[in-house]
Amino acid sequence: MRKILLFPLGIFLFQAASSQKVMGFTEANAAKQISWEKQFDAELKSANLDEWMKFMTAHPHHVGSPQDKANAEYMANLFRSWGYQAELSSYDVLFPTPKTRQLELLSAKPFKARLDEPVLAADKTSALKSEQLPSYNAYSADGDVTAELVYVNRGIPADYDELARLGVDVRGKIVIAKYGGSWRGIKPKVAAEHGAIGCLIYSDPADDGYAIGDLYPDGGYRPKDGVQRGSVMDMPVYPGDPLTPNIGATKDAVRLDRKDAITIMKIPVLPISYADALPLLQSLAGQVAPASWRGALPITYHVGPSRDKVHLKLEFNWDIKTLYNVIAKMQGSEFPDEWIISGNHHDAWVNGADDPMSGMVSEMEQARAIGELVKKGFRPKRTLVFCAWDGEEPALLGSTEWVEDHQTELQQKAVAYINSDGNSRGFIGASGSHTFEPFFNEITEQVTDPQTGVTLKQRKYAKTLVDADKTNRAKLFGNTYMKLGALGAGSDYSPFIQHLGIPSMNIGFGGESAGNQYHSVYDSYDFFIKYMDPGYAYGIALAKVKARIILRLACADVLPFDFNSFYKTVNDYATEVKALLETTRTETESENRLIREKLYELAKDPTKTNITPQPKSNVPYVDFSPVENALVQLKNSAEEMQRLYASALNLPAEKIKSLNTILYQAEQSLAIEKGLPRRPWYRHQIYAPGFYTGYGVKTLPGIREAIEQRNWKEAQDNIQQVALTLIAYTSRINQAIALLK
Amino acid sequence: MRKILLFPLGIFLFQAASSQKVMGFTEANAAKQISWEKQFDAELKSANLDEWMKFMTAHPHHVGSPQDKANAEYMANLFRSWGYQAELSSYDVLFPTPKTRQLELLSAKPFKARLDEPVLAADKTSALKSEQLPSYNAYSADGDVTAELVYVNRGIPADYDELARLGVDVRGKIVIAKYGGSWRGIKPKVAAEHGAIGCLIYSDPADDGYAIGDLYPDGGYRPKDGVQRGSVMDMPVYPGDPLTPNIGATKDAVRLDRKDAITIMKIPVLPISYADALPLLQSLAGQVAPASWRGALPITYHVGPSRDKVHLKLEFNWDIKTLYNVIAKMQGSEFPDEWIISGNHHDAWVNGADDPMSGMVSEMEQARAIGELVKKGFRPKRTLVFCAWDGEEPALLGSTEWVEDHQTELQQKAVAYINSDGNSRGFIGASGSHTFEPFFNEITEQVTDPQTGVTLKQRKYAKTLVDADKTNRAKLFGNTYMKLGALGAGSDYSPFIQHLGIPSMNIGFGGESAGNQYHSVYDSYDFFIKYMDPGYAYGIALAKVKARIILRLACADVLPFDFNSFYKTVNDYATEVKALLETTRTETESENRLIREKLYELAKDPTKTNITPQPKSNVPYVDFSPVENALVQLKNSAEEMQRLYASALNLPAEKIKSLNTILYQAEQSLAIEKGLPRRPWYRHQIYAPGFYTGYGVKTLPGIREAIEQRNWKEAQDNIQQVALTLIAYTSRINQAIALLK
Repeated sequence: MRKILLFPLGIFLFQAASSQKVMGFTEANAAKQISWEKQFDAELKSANLDEWMKFMTAHPHHVGSPQDKANAEYMANLFRSWGYQAELSSYDVLFPTPKTRQLELLSAKPFKARLDEPVLAADKTSALKSEQLPSYNAYSADGDVTAELVYVNRGIPADYDELARLGVDVRGKIVIAKYGGSWRGIKPKVAAEHGAIGCLIYSDPADDGYAIGDLYPDGGYRPKDGVQRGSVMDMPVYPGDPLTPNIGATKDAVRLDRKDAITIMKIPVLPISYADALPLLQSLAGQVAPASWRGALPITYHVGPSRDKVHLKLEFNWDIKTLYNVIAKMQGSEFPDEWIISGNHHDAWVNGADDPMSGMVSEMEQARAIGELVKKGFRPKRTLVFCAWDGEEPALLGSTEWVEDHQTELQQKAVAYINSDGNSRGFIGASGSHTFEPFFNEITEQVTDPQTGVTLKQRKYAKTLVDADKTNRAKLFGNTYMKLGALGAGSDYSPFIQHLGIPSMNIGFGGESAGNQYHSVYDSYDFFIKYMDPGYAYGIALAKVKARIILRLACADVLPFDFNSFYKTVNDYATEVKALLETTRTETESENRLIREKLYELAKDPTKTNITPQPKSNVPYVDFSPVENALVQLKNSAEEMQRLYASALNLPAEKIKSLNTILYQAEQSLAIEKGLPRRPWYRHQIYAPGFYTGYGVKTLPGIREAIEQRNWKEAQDNIQQVALTLIAYTSRINQAIALLK
Repeated sequence: MRKILLFPLGIFLFQAASSQKVMGFTEANAAKQISWEKQFDAELKSANLDEWMKFMTAHPHHVGSPQDKANAEYMANLFRSWGYQAELSSYDVLFPTPKTRQLELLSAKPFKARLDEPVLAADKTSALKSEQLPSYNAYSADGDVTAELVYVNRGIPADYDELARLGVDVRGKIVIAKYGGSWRGIKPKVAAEHGAIGCLIYSDPADDGYAIGDLYPDGGYRPKDGVQRGSVMDMPVYPGDPLTPNIGATKDAVRLDRKDAITIMKIPVLPISYADALPLLQSLAGQVAPASWRGALPITYHVGPSRDKVHLKLEFNWDIKTLYNVIAKMQGSEFPDEWIISGNHHDAWVNGADDPMSGMVSEMEQARAIGELVKKGFRPKRTLVFCAWDGEEPALLGSTEWVEDHQTELQQKAVAYINSDGNSRGFIGASGSHTFEPFFNEITEQVTDPQTGVTLKQRKYAKTLVDADKTNRAKLFGNTYMKLGALGAGSDYSPFIQHLGIPSMNIGFGGESAGNQYHSVYDSYDFFIKYMDPGYAYGIALAKVKARIILRLACADVLPFDFNSFYKTVNDYATEVKALLETTRTETESENRLIREKLYELAKDPTKTNITPQPKSNVPYVDFSPVENALVQLKNSAEEMQRLYASALNLPAEKIKSLNTILYQAEQSLAIEKGLPRRPWYRHQIYAPGFYTGYGVKTLPGIREAIEQRNWKEAQDNIQQVALTLIAYTSRINQAIALLK
């Protein structure tokens, strides 16, 4: 014993590293896999990323632009040169572009908004004026409105509650909201629900301007005339072409009339710079805005209405445009009908170096390096499908139409979908199906961070500990496990996971970029290379991570799904929604007591308007037991499956194939046919983007949003629905267990 | 029984109100007292406050100015006219005023700071240029320094820890700090300790400018050229004349040499407006300041050093000036040697309408109305002493010198000291000796809020509930008890309580003012009447509260001290300092583990300077049992005293007099001769201003600051000292109990 203790620790670590296990692989296959991964890493060349980035960001490349199609063809040709069967996959989608944009303040000294991002000498492509899409919000309504302005903070429902307390009504008004705090499309949607007739969204320097760092081009942050473009389609209802919900927007698809497309915004919406916003905000009268509503402009923020009226006129070309996805396949040697799909979008609002090309060129290098491995004899057992999506920016158009168009095939064949998007210097971040959690953790222990040389997991752990609240830090030590986030919306994984229940992940690095030109002309090559990922070290790191995910899924003997991680996560979500109901109850009681005892009346400043809210209905007790009982069954099955998992490697090949099919199709049972209330396109019962938050995920969305909306009947119905869904899911696990016994 | 239950509730309430008990009074005397209080209330006339305010704020009235002396004489004459023996009490104090003020940025385009608050047409007295003290920090050092600038946020010790992490050293530099986050004198003191050679302090618009509300004169907030004057004497060591610590600054007092006066700042310090600060802040290079350091200027805040050097030249007239307190007495009819002292200062930095005249004119009206009661036959049993202090602004000069000069007499006679200062619209706020807590609560139930008509306590309760964090609100319902704050420093109560242990309170209204021109020329009559307390409703309310305190103390049969409230409060403080030690231990262990495991190194952005701090020594366990045991004894005695208190009313007069003397002198036993470590002037062992926070109180300061400074030996010594002090205090209570048995 003593002798063993004398072995230096380093040797053990080295041995552990050299006999690495890989989840889902026999020991022999694991060793081969790791050897291929090392060769893969050695293949990666940042010069390639730079070459492709330069080419593809040289011109604006939004849907319908010449460079958009050129990029698709460029990529398809490259994929072919690397040994893939690549094709362009086209859909014809409604994609409005601006015809008229006018914004003015009808004051004594009239102000006309500039609505233009000027050319900067230090940013070469900013000069390509004639090719650029002007700043606008896609799927805004046409409109010509003149009204007083009201400041609505982030423009989320809680902000309107506050305005009601301040006695401000937005009916018939134009609202101005800050970017941030929700997905942008929520702002005009909620404004319209409250009766506003127009909506402006501006980038406050508190969020991505001088308050954060020096302005571009001296620094990386949004300059005074910089504008965030973006879609305001009501994607929390359904993404993709508004005219073809649930089906592919093929040439001959049956299309809705535009007036029947419910995801098109009801009022005109325009994004503006803070230079354009400043005179409008200075015209606001009324009470001083609440402290938490303040931005970083050198003014007193008032809620309005404004002293002067605002005139907003917007007209769009409501054209059908053709988009071009690139789909590149490498046939699996053993299971060609099991697809490991990965994707990144290639379209941009303008030149889009960070968003999306930083992720796209990493994906291309993954594909190229895998092609090189194949030349050396590597054979993926399952089919690799690399996708370069078009039309992500307007509404996840390319991915959604492709998924809708290939629904049946994907339900049969899709093992997983792995997404990336903008990528920059910093720390690994990952969200996705929680069955992937141990699998992903294993990979983060095997890829090193390019700046520090420790594993990605170790660096992320260090960051978590250093950033943790002092009072909370002690209990975090030693817990290096990386919890996956849940997927909401915001990139092309949405149709895969939300609509079909295909196990999905989204991966990227970030947190150390030195700028933000999100959806601006200044998200350019010049910007990216200086502020986001100089030298592409993190584009290469992303390639290592994503390729390991893809290649391990492609070659695993038994697919690396872990139901126990899923159970634990959903159990936590159930605890959360139960707590949410209790918190809602306590807060409702307190709020009603404040009202009943006239404490709002007594506390308020009598010289200011401050309207006491109406009492709310009491919160009933709700029966969570169906979900709780379903979770017990899930737990038992998931734990048994976890115990048996290793033994699966010893099954005969035929049985393993059946087992794998059960494993990768299990999550599809979470995506039920009738979908979520009021948005049937969203079928997944565990993860969805928030109906009133947009990007932000709502877990157990049917239950959680019903509670948030105080719809107790719907909460109870959805508890029942989630329970049934979990039972169906558990029965899939039980099928797998039966195979293993 | 049933019949009784049928009585409407209102009748009981009415009966309860009409047979009000008053703490410390026999039932008969209580009825008389309440009757006098009603007559007092009826006497109050806001027109008086306005008349005196107009006269006394018509010219700048700082120490040494003609209006300062004129105001003292004006008040003395008025007090005399109301039936008081009034005298001017003069001291000769070191009061520096500026001779030279120069601040410039030595940039390619040189910038010379304006250092002047311009005349505003809407603010009449702002035009009195020749009479105004220019903007400066009193007791700054003379100096002529040229150096690079570093931004130090609030300039407290934790900010220098952060600068060290960012690799920025202030040695040989000039620092620029924001006002706020500490008493201003802490900023240059800490800067000098870190080797800085000059200090600028500016008013960031985030704190009292456009971020809060519209700028004066359109609104009430500090305009771009507005400056906060103020003292930077090291008052946490001792206040008052720096040349005469511990003794009155009489004509023939033995004075220190100025060079030996340790409370005079070591480096030149100048307060500036944000208009003057902006070009300096724009010159800062180096890293972007941490997010929490940002202000509301439209720039990226950098920590520095600056690209250009700053030149700061300050010279002062180090003159001895005469100050004029007004001391007005009304002899007590039964106990002339028991003094109820109340005070407010009368000097200002410039015209000082809010600070201090809003409180001063309320005190004058109290004195006048009491004079009217006396004409109708009212006789206070104890002597009333109304004080109007001079020289509060520079260093609590007038009150401190008077207290030091009358120390022996005060230790014999002073029953209590009740302070006020600036007063404005809003909610009652009170701090003080916790023996006064039930007494004060009783009064807040008997004075109504002028805006809502409910009791002050009820309105404060409403505000507390409405402002409470949602998650915390439920447990606050029903608890209307007003906890007194603890007294730190910041006004004239300091020498009374901190130096002599005389039971003290500080009372004022606030929270609904619509502006802030603190220590600026714009704290004027025009400003006050529009934004602070239009109509003086809260000046009148303050008169009602403060007069009730004074008159009840003056007429009580048994003085209304409650030791049990004191016990509970100190017991809470003891719990806090024990928790502080444990938190310090946990955080030290976590911090050292971050360092040891190189997590700081791994988490940091390698492109930026980010220096890992040195590990700290481990936190030992400390023996709190002496304090815990002393608290048990205090608890037992305090509870017994509380049980016996009512019976005291039945004692023979002679015994009551002895008892009262014990009661009012008890707190003096908390002020021990040797005082606090490194600042013997501060003798109170329970309350003190923080050595490194200034205004902010530190309770159990000897123990708490020792832990904060990681001086474990001193913490243990001070536990022992506090225990002995509490034992001595308990023995006073036991003397009272002995009298009662």
